[in-house]
Amino acid sequence: MTPRGHVSLVGAGPGDPGLLTRAAVARLRQADLVLYDALIDPRILRYARQAQKFYVGKRAARHAMAQEQIHALMIRGARRGRRVVRLKGGDPFVFGRGGEEALALKRAGVSYDVVPGVSSALAAPAAAGIPVTHRGAASAFLVVTGHDERAFADAIGAAAPNAVTLVILMGVGRAAALACALIDRGWRRATPAAVVVDGTTARQQTWRGTLDDLAEDRVTLDACGPGTIVVGDVVSVGASIVGTAQQPVGERSYVSRG
Amino acid sequence: MTPRGHVSLVGAGPGDPGLLTRAAVARLRQADLVLYDALIDPRILRYARQAQKFYVGKRAARHAMAQEQIHALMIRGARRGRRVVRLKGGDPFVFGRGGEEALALKRAGVSYDVVPGVSSALAAPAAAGIPVTHRGAASAFLVVTGHDERAFADAIGAAAPNAVTLVILMGVGRAAALACALIDRGWRRATPAAVVVDGTTARQQTWRGTLDDLAEDRVTLDACGPGTIVVGDVVSVGASIVGTAQQPVGERSYVSRG
Repeated sequence: MTPRGHVSLVGAGPGDPGLLTRAAVARLRQADLVLYDALIDPRILRYARQAQKFYVGKRAARHAMAQEQIHALMIRGARRGRRVVRLKGGDPFVFGRGGEEALALKRAGVSYDVVPGVSSALAAPAAAGIPVTHRGAASAFLVVTGHDERAFADAIGAAAPNAVTLVILMGVGRAAALACALIDRGWRRATPAAVVVDGTTARQQTWRGTLDDLAEDRVTLDACGPGTIVVGDVVSVGASIVGTAQQPVGERSYVSRG
Repeated sequence: MTPRGHVSLVGAGPGDPGLLTRAAVARLRQADLVLYDALIDPRILRYARQAQKFYVGKRAARHAMAQEQIHALMIRGARRGRRVVRLKGGDPFVFGRGGEEALALKRAGVSYDVVPGVSSALAAPAAAGIPVTHRGAASAFLVVTGHDERAFADAIGAAAPNAVTLVILMGVGRAAALACALIDRGWRRATPAAVVVDGTTARQQTWRGTLDDLAEDRVTLDACGPGTIVVGDVVSVGASIVGTAQQPVGERSYVSRG
């Protein structure tokens, strides 16, 4: 075992390469091997000039196996003395299975660290002008995944209706079902809701309406990128903010001094 | 009014200058005027070489007035054609009154944008090895402020006890009272809890125990920096992770390639 082998679990941020952290850039520049998920901008990967790069994005039916394979690739790389970056969308510890990967590295006795990233849970709403907290509108926010039906049911079962801002990651494909579940749970149909697809990127699209619109499938977005759903009064605050943002939060406004 | 006047509401991240985004660095480099809060690392301010820098951190008794003054300073700066950076700890839209500042800019007709940052709500736990979500431990997390008694009571009143990871920002000074409130609300006394002070910085200190320990004031930290409290089973996951991190998430490991 070579002592210099090391794995960094790195958050790649919400999409915009400008929202990559300095630490993430430094890890990528030093990397020998990069294992990256789906939805990572190619311009982010380009920082890893010296590295071999492997796409390890998962397919729906093969989660468990792919996850084990990712662990094995990280561990093998580190044991061969390589500097491995495991590059994950958003923040590695927010629905990213980063905790599982860290535990696997620990069990294997591999040196590792974690570089937090800007989470889509905050940045996608912000890019649409929606603050997740705002005086008089919300003093707390709950972040859940819409990907797992059971986990979603548990999470919304744990929150009183209309009491906090609800941010749903990985739920756009099931938005109508999720909205119905919220209404069944007692959330007001008129609650403001937004869907932000490809948030923070040049392709960003935002839809605004109500929970009822979501439940009735009246979302008018022609997009298939990753999306964030926000439910709560803060969406209305945002509606009045976004009109003025003359420099949108997009990568174009960042790269000039990158 | 000069057309080039502009205000950027910029998140400075959780403390470690390595966790500043590339976009934040670019905004600082272009800035003529920086209005910054308490707890911003001087190394972060140094990116703004050409800028005048004003500390606008608030004092407890003068919140409302100071907030209005900050609005006035931003607006005046932009109207004089300056590139203003309003630099806020963490993410500008997480308990940062960024929404209010954006609305004030909008009302004044001033061009502005928002640059999301890495929030302490995620990064401080991560730096202590605690993933806010983890399979089998938590599939959702609730972020609240401990600063405002009423807001805290509302937020925890809205969440079923022990159903999600609870992240409390700005609550370390009142940790015992907050823990008591949680226990009164039905949270188990044995729930794992952690306090991370100065998270992600070289001064980081982490305490781990239970909610009962917190309530009984048994936290053994000698620190007065900003702190994040995490309550939930994920703290135990973290306990087993943090032991191996041979390169902690601290600024020292980042600056070499910055």
